[in-house]
Amino acid sequence: MTENRRILIDSLPEGALETSNYNLVTESIPLAGSGEILCRTLAISIDAGSRAGLQGSASYAGAPRTGVVMNGTALARIEDSKLAGFQPGDLVTCPAGWQDYSVQTQQTASLIPSDGDPVRYLGVLGGTGLTAYFGLFNIGQPNPGETVVVSAAAGAVGHLVGQMARTRDCHAIGVAGSDEKCHRLVTELGFDAAVNYREGNFRQALKDACPNGIDIYFDNTGGEILGSALFRMNQNGRIVCCGVVSQYDTSNPASGPKGIPGLLINKRLTMQGFLVFDYLNQYEAARSTIKGWLANGELKPWQDAYEGLESAPRALVDLLAGGNAGKRIVRVAE
Amino acid sequence: MTENRRILIDSLPEGALETSNYNLVTESIPLAGSGEILCRTLAISIDAGSRAGLQGSASYAGAPRTGVVMNGTALARIEDSKLAGFQPGDLVTCPAGWQDYSVQTQQTASLIPSDGDPVRYLGVLGGTGLTAYFGLFNIGQPNPGETVVVSAAAGAVGHLVGQMARTRDCHAIGVAGSDEKCHRLVTELGFDAAVNYREGNFRQALKDACPNGIDIYFDNTGGEILGSALFRMNQNGRIVCCGVVSQYDTSNPASGPKGIPGLLINKRLTMQGFLVFDYLNQYEAARSTIKGWLANGELKPWQDAYEGLESAPRALVDLLAGGNAGKRIVRVAE
Repeated sequence: MTENRRILIDSLPEGALETSNYNLVTESIPLAGSGEILCRTLAISIDAGSRAGLQGSASYAGAPRTGVVMNGTALARIEDSKLAGFQPGDLVTCPAGWQDYSVQTQQTASLIPSDGDPVRYLGVLGGTGLTAYFGLFNIGQPNPGETVVVSAAAGAVGHLVGQMARTRDCHAIGVAGSDEKCHRLVTELGFDAAVNYREGNFRQALKDACPNGIDIYFDNTGGEILGSALFRMNQNGRIVCCGVVSQYDTSNPASGPKGIPGLLINKRLTMQGFLVFDYLNQYEAARSTIKGWLANGELKPWQDAYEGLESAPRALVDLLAGGNAGKRIVRVAE
Repeated sequence: MTENRRILIDSLPEGALETSNYNLVTESIPLAGSGEILCRTLAISIDAGSRAGLQGSASYAGAPRTGVVMNGTALARIEDSKLAGFQPGDLVTCPAGWQDYSVQTQQTASLIPSDGDPVRYLGVLGGTGLTAYFGLFNIGQPNPGETVVVSAAAGAVGHLVGQMARTRDCHAIGVAGSDEKCHRLVTELGFDAAVNYREGNFRQALKDACPNGIDIYFDNTGGEILGSALFRMNQNGRIVCCGVVSQYDTSNPASGPKGIPGLLINKRLTMQGFLVFDYLNQYEAARSTIKGWLANGELKPWQDAYEGLESAPRALVDLLAGGNAGKRIVRVAE
């Protein structure tokens, strides 16, 4: 290859994101300067949260801009290095965005060990797995026997949260958007129950699935699912605010649920937001625990792959519509 | 006196509470049975939170009912006792409700010491003072130099929260509903600033009053003031959910603010609700600290009294409209 394909943000979405909000351009491959490495993108992580960065108001991802390469974490192979300790052929994760090649530095690239499928470092050993881990254990603080409900339960984070809750002898209840997803969560991953929020009387179904109420609600969605969970929380319950996927794909986010703050008071609830980056100094310990669960079969990560850089816009649009099961990636090169 | 005047809930309010939702009846004075005491009500605490108990859905106060005496904490004098350790003439606080006489037990009556004006045990040494204390210190966990904003800042709890925050060398910013209240908070109580939410551009005024952002928002109101504070919170800020006075006086509470849960995530905020009853085993230690502040002048409680049992409905209706400054009580007898 002699060219660098790059997918740029062509326009900011008004309403739901569309593939036409992106355009693909071809440029020459950049050069690594002193202290830099040239990275070949092998796979890209597709994350619902990156949609938030395209909204009118700035999120933690910063204010939205057009004409720049779409952001995203990648698995990449070093092609050229002018940085000590980073060798050609080494694998890294880095914020390459949606492009074939990028230049990274010691601050932006993380070397990954040769201990199995490297794509796991975009999922169960990367941001999504660590998000599930710190959200559940550091924020949720589960105790054995408690009921943990997770929304977007078949998503990249959600399907891990339920399994991690089972390792602590909690009851794990998933909320997902199709009967098939719900069936798989229970039969393949050991969730105690799963509820399809798009079918029938969701509030009643959630109540039936949680006969002892909810002690921890791990919220990946916000919106009406959060509102329904609030009414089933037990006294001193914890709501882990991890994502707001119900509100990302719009230019006009909805109001918060009724019952905030009233129910927080009556039930002495805690709602706490977090970002995984805040736990950087605990990553290695968490990864070690997660690898143990992977080895003994307690944690079964799902992966959901699109092929080819050009499929990235479709992969994200479809993800926002609930099309994924588990961690979605785009494979860019071998 | 030979009769017991009682103010009953005659009808549940539709929309704002009115004095016509109550009716006064006269019955004979009850008798204390074995293990009971007969209590003469001396003063009644008027609390915004009691309005929540009249709403259609049950609150921590239980489901609303008509035909029963309106609830309220009282200062009372024991008139007759068939309960060891409780002597005629002793003073107690008890859930007497809006009536001249009530029968209490060891479980419901708390003896109060003879250490100054006993009405303080309805305010700064009672539920409101303890609510300010545990909410600010146990939930908010203030650090020196942080900015604490409190809504309903001239209210029974709010005017104490700001003063308590000053004892921890925090910046105390009040939000209140009149220029006069704001002026008094700053000049009489030592608040660093106060903002009238009913005047001009409140969001801008709040921003101007908090140049370093908000570390702790002590929320007595919910609604739009909560929504405005959310946007000014600093990373890792704490929102103490204490009351929802903006939503009590309606049969159709509003939705929660936009930005929940999105801003909680981006800013890593914690919102936590509490009820003062959960800290029962820490009451005495907290009262001891509060008495120290009263003695050295660091804490100046405001009291706002109506005269006569029959004025209780008007006292509550006016309180819900923001008419009070400090702790509102109704004096019933000497």
